[in-house]
Amino acid sequence: MEETTLLMNIMWTMLGAFLVYFMQAGFAMVETGFTRAKNAGNICMKNMMDFVLGSLFFFILGFPLMFGKNIAGIIGGSGFLNPYSLADANGMINGLPIGVFMIFHTVFCATAATIVSGAMAERTKFSSYLVYSAAISIFIYPVTGHWIWGGGWLAEIGFHDFAGSTAVHMVGGVCAFVGAKIVGPRLGKYNSDGTPNAIPGHNIPLGFLGVFILWFCWFGFNCGSTTAASTSLGDIAITTNLAAAASTLVTLLFTWARYGKPDVSMTLNGALAGLVAITAGCDVVTPYEAIIIGVIAGFVVVLAIEFIDKVVRVDDPVGAVGVHGCCGLVGTLLTGVFGEGCSFVTQLTGVVSVLVYAAVLAFLIFTVIRLTIGLRVSDQEQLDGLDMHEHGMTAYSGFRIDK
Amino acid sequence: MEETTLLMNIMWTMLGAFLVYFMQAGFAMVETGFTRAKNAGNICMKNMMDFVLGSLFFFILGFPLMFGKNIAGIIGGSGFLNPYSLADANGMINGLPIGVFMIFHTVFCATAATIVSGAMAERTKFSSYLVYSAAISIFIYPVTGHWIWGGGWLAEIGFHDFAGSTAVHMVGGVCAFVGAKIVGPRLGKYNSDGTPNAIPGHNIPLGFLGVFILWFCWFGFNCGSTTAASTSLGDIAITTNLAAAASTLVTLLFTWARYGKPDVSMTLNGALAGLVAITAGCDVVTPYEAIIIGVIAGFVVVLAIEFIDKVVRVDDPVGAVGVHGCCGLVGTLLTGVFGEGCSFVTQLTGVVSVLVYAAVLAFLIFTVIRLTIGLRVSDQEQLDGLDMHEHGMTAYSGFRIDK
Amino acid sequence: MEETTLLMNIMWTMLGAFLVYFMQAGFAMVETGFTRAKNAGNICMKNMMDFVLGSLFFFILGFPLMFGKNIAGIIGGSGFLNPYSLADANGMINGLPIGVFMIFHTVFCATAATIVSGAMAERTKFSSYLVYSAAISIFIYPVTGHWIWGGGWLAEIGFHDFAGSTAVHMVGGVCAFVGAKIVGPRLGKYNSDGTPNAIPGHNIPLGFLGVFILWFCWFGFNCGSTTAASTSLGDIAITTNLAAAASTLVTLLFTWARYGKPDVSMTLNGALAGLVAITAGCDVVTPYEAIIIGVIAGFVVVLAIEFIDKVVRVDDPVGAVGVHGCCGLVGTLLTGVFGEGCSFVTQLTGVVSVLVYAAVLAFLIFTVIRLTIGLRVSDQEQLDGLDMHEHGMTAYSGFRIDK
Repeated sequence: MEETTLLMNIMWTMLGAFLVYFMQAGFAMVETGFTRAKNAGNICMKNMMDFVLGSLFFFILGFPLMFGKNIAGIIGGSGFLNPYSLADANGMINGLPIGVFMIFHTVFCATAATIVSGAMAERTKFSSYLVYSAAISIFIYPVTGHWIWGGGWLAEIGFHDFAGSTAVHMVGGVCAFVGAKIVGPRLGKYNSDGTPNAIPGHNIPLGFLGVFILWFCWFGFNCGSTTAASTSLGDIAITTNLAAAASTLVTLLFTWARYGKPDVSMTLNGALAGLVAITAGCDVVTPYEAIIIGVIAGFVVVLAIEFIDKVVRVDDPVGAVGVHGCCGLVGTLLTGVFGEGCSFVTQLTGVVSVLVYAAVLAFLIFTVIRLTIGLRVSDQEQLDGLDMHEHGMTAYSGFRIDK
Repeated sequence: MEETTLLMNIMWTMLGAFLVYFMQAGFAMVETGFTRAKNAGNICMKNMMDFVLGSLFFFILGFPLMFGKNIAGIIGGSGFLNPYSLADANGMINGLPIGVFMIFHTVFCATAATIVSGAMAERTKFSSYLVYSAAISIFIYPVTGHWIWGGGWLAEIGFHDFAGSTAVHMVGGVCAFVGAKIVGPRLGKYNSDGTPNAIPGHNIPLGFLGVFILWFCWFGFNCGSTTAASTSLGDIAITTNLAAAASTLVTLLFTWARYGKPDVSMTLNGALAGLVAITAGCDVVTPYEAIIIGVIAGFVVVLAIEFIDKVVRVDDPVGAVGVHGCCGLVGTLLTGVFGEGCSFVTQLTGVVSVLVYAAVLAFLIFTVIRLTIGLRVSDQEQLDGLDMHEHGMTAYSGFRIDK
Repeated sequence: MEETTLLMNIMWTMLGAFLVYFMQAGFAMVETGFTRAKNAGNICMKNMMDFVLGSLFFFILGFPLMFGKNIAGIIGGSGFLNPYSLADANGMINGLPIGVFMIFHTVFCATAATIVSGAMAERTKFSSYLVYSAAISIFIYPVTGHWIWGGGWLAEIGFHDFAGSTAVHMVGGVCAFVGAKIVGPRLGKYNSDGTPNAIPGHNIPLGFLGVFILWFCWFGFNCGSTTAASTSLGDIAITTNLAAAASTLVTLLFTWARYGKPDVSMTLNGALAGLVAITAGCDVVTPYEAIIIGVIAGFVVVLAIEFIDKVVRVDDPVGAVGVHGCCGLVGTLLTGVFGEGCSFVTQLTGVVSVLVYAAVLAFLIFTVIRLTIGLRVSDQEQLDGLDMHEHGMTAYSGFRIDK
């Protein structure tokens, strides 16, 4: 490759990596804003720590599992503890200097882990969170990531997941679902007859800020996934933006019709739903197809969150399963419907296999944690708030707050 | 154009677009922080939805009106519903791939609409907001945008508005003024003798965060408006930054002298005032001229906000008219005074014609809405807060708040 | 230099400058979140104003002092009031157009000044803050900056401070220490027997947001300091990220072991500690060396903050001295231990000389202010809050807050 082209690709990939890092702030604000004040410090800490652990473990184990020497299409098997050894003689891997490629994939990996913290918020032990967040970064994300982006078997059959509707979001959403199911609902979430109670978030402006940050960073997530300067960057941004806009609008109108008022937290989730759904195919669909994908995602997220809340009765405080799990799945399948050169059967094969792997592994990880160090805080800790019990602090010192 | 140059220009324009998108977060935080807690969810929703509607309508109608085939210098008239058809055989328009050019202008359009939400906050119906925010994105912004940036008559006579003091900010500010006038003041804003009461904002740190975000993104707004990698990028950033700094300092000192204490919300508006004012001429003035423009903007914003509040008696909760309307106008005129190769008469012609067009159209739009679906919530809704009535929620669940 | 290369370097440097500007938001949120609600507007104002004054004074005096004609390796001595005159015939300085180079260094300068505001929060007069913040931007930062980055004597002997562990952070931290010592502790911070009381911050989610913003922007700070597109950008991001992750994890575990619970505010400072420490050598250490630097910083920041709080008895509300001063110093020295081609003796020479200069100048500046306009607000103002007395406002209107 010509030096100039390489340098341009490096700059573009670095910008993408920076923006995807900043999604951590977005997730932290969304998850904090949508939960209660008494747990705000704890949820922020979990968001901080999953990135920290993800960064460290992805360097020593995850990157080698994902991009090491391909073993039967299933897993990478070289470079452990020394991921830089995976570079060629010029220090390159996949057309980029290995450091550039690695920081980009590090921030992606950490995004998957952080999705789980929202679904399990307000009743999960901090120590257990550290363990499973590391485990996801080691045993789940890099493996399915290898299948999709590391030259594994899904890559070989032509599975198309451009920026990670499946690789990042569905994986995160599946782990979130399994975790939320196993840790059980928050105290007071379900009545004795099984009907759910709404537990409103304590800081909606922070939730909005989080969504604005995520939308902003999603341009880096999707456009950055070219890992190259390209004439198609604008088209990718257009499809991304239109899908998100369509999904937000549909969610607004759908909840307005359904509940009598346009629902705030659902509309925010609607924005994320469109972004998640378009991520797989943002490079291979037309603008109007992107709008259709957004419209579908806008309905899916509302129905999925209701279904999980009321029928499945899994307590997901921020709707992470509906947003990332369901819309990641749907968006990947729709890429098989609309995407130029994509096959529905291949897309279906991909989501099913990734879903099964992630669900089984997540089940094993959470079950082992539950049976050993335990997954759930005591009822008293829940009542008093995790901030006080886990960290000996309150997030809003001086404010009068009803718990 | 050489491929390398094109790719560099694409990357730079995309970065600008990303940053201008993120202004949405800045506006949302400023407007939320400067208003009351009981309306915080509603104001955030409006900020979210004007971007959503702006994105969708700009794609199908606005972009064609702004950049379609020029009809008599007044309006674009082709590409409706299919804006990609406006590209040449190589997929280009104005020297960039059309997707790149379009996402850049989409985020600019949405910025104009979002300015209005602050001035009309705390008493405007949500459904009406959706309608007029769409209408601004269709009938106002693209038309004056065509005049200035789409090859229309102002472009032809040499009107200079580099990054949109007039095209974006004054247009937004004029619509904000007309809307705030027609919707009427908030309950309790004016006493029976016509004197105004201050209604303090509920979350000043969020307001600061918003201004910091806006200043950050303004580098993308102004430097990105080259839509090209250029040796002048640093000079544009320098003039932008110096004008903002000068304006902030002047506002601080002026309010200190005038009120006895350095005023916090006015100083924040002072920062925005300098940014708005320098936007038209940031590429054609020297650093010291930028400082002069900032100094003037710093005085103008204080006097304009006072004048509107006390003499005109239009209730603008966040000072949007003073900041965007007045400083947009002043900055565009000062570009005629200082800008190399700019003419004061041409600049005056531009601002007057854009002001008249925007004011007339805004008057029509708001009047039609007022007479049909209505523009203003009931007094009871105002007292209880729009969050509760419009969305069935509170923004700060658990906190004890006096309404 | 070839035109293409120049344009790429310009774009990269501009992106770095934008991100470093945005650190202002991060610092403001950290400092606000970690202090009390009654002072939130004031601390935000200080953060805003140090950037404003820094920008203006750096343009007319600071840049010439730092990059003007070198006088005996000690100071720059040309270009006053007209920094653009320092460019060569092609408008260039140090390989970049002067505007690009200048905006990059402007935002760095303002970062140093803003560090001080946190350490002196909640009891420093606003007017005095304006004076010393200007003074730091004129008399301290540009001088030591000249030594290190302006071709001065430290640059000549090979002192390595790639992105400013010493030039920015230690300088800020030393001024912070001197200022906090001279202004004295907040009321109620120390008991009559000299034991300290914890004064908890009022908005921990904002503090987290600030740290996420800072981490994000640090990629611009460190990677941007190449001021060039380069194949090494990824490696710099990797070392930066790993050091921060390691430091955060160590602080978490260390405080967990030491206090019985993982400490939230200390962990946040741990993240910043790692970022500060790796800044000097991020371009010359390996990933594992970066982890070691992070591990050391994680211990240092806890012990330093405790030592300053309990033994030295200087009241630093946000831990700025421990984070920026101590970890800046330690990170610069460790660059002499690990950095390829770096000398420990040279590094030690650098930090000692910069420390002494900054401490002496800061002592003079703060003492002159204390003896003239005064440095500290009255006890009554402290009790009521600086927001009310200095600015006639409250930051959280409507919320019930215990002071």
